[in-house]
Amino acid sequence: MDEREAVDRLASARVARLATADAGGMPHVVPFVFVLLDRTIYWAVDEKPKRSPRLKRLENIAANPNVAVVADHYEEDWSKLWWVRASGIARVVGEETERTRALEALAAKYPQDRDAPPDGPVVAVDVVRIGWWTA
Amino acid sequence: MDEREAVDRLASARVARLATADAGGMPHVVPFVFVLLDRTIYWAVDEKPKRSPRLKRLENIAANPNVAVVADHYEEDWSKLWWVRASGIARVVGEETERTRALEALAAKYPQDRDAPPDGPVVAVDVVRIGWWTA
Repeated sequence: MDEREAVDRLASARVARLATADAGGMPHVVPFVFVLLDRTIYWAVDEKPKRSPRLKRLENIAANPNVAVVADHYEEDWSKLWWVRASGIARVVGEETERTRALEALAAKYPQDRDAPPDGPVVAVDVVRIGWWTA
Repeated sequence: MDEREAVDRLASARVARLATADAGGMPHVVPFVFVLLDRTIYWAVDEKPKRSPRLKRLENIAANPNVAVVADHYEEDWSKLWWVRASGIARVVGEETERTRALEALAAKYPQDRDAPPDGPVVAVDVVRIGWWTA
């Protein structure tokens, strides 16, 4: 795998996992759906179900914007395992144009979002470093 | 889902993701295979392929033993999504009996490990809190 391939695999992944840490360094991790546009990962907060775990991510990011994201492939044939990890800096998207672009990209990738688009904040993770591993 | 069901789903998951953070609160996340015995998650470091990303987890744990683990189910029908998260304290297993028990449980869960068992440290995560979410 080279960096272009790693970026492609990350962009194509249907789900990834987002790790944050609070100001005290306590880690938190949650699966999330996202899009990768250029070198920025976007995800949107859907306020509807179960607010608190989603808001925990936002609290952590407000206290400590460093995040790590991993997309991976698991199967029982371990010779086929791989993962791609992106480390970056998270920010809540304030600009309406950027927010709209992210929500449109999310709706294009995930038809599930089209009927009831997320109504909470959109978060951008500006990717600083990409790493990867293959078995 | 109740806590017993959450624990069962975590124990049965073939892969989960481990989030750690270094002393400066920089998060790190990686997929990993593991076993859950009572309230302790065990995983073993296989030194053979690509040392550094695996050792990074160990460095982080030495600096900050707080970790979070998430096992989740993704499918395109989002009404079937779920995740289970365990937060806990990590420690390298020093006692030989505990190490052997963990490696045997890993080999029982993962036939892939039987031919070439991991030869690095075994890490225990004593689970402090279990959380879960279903769509």
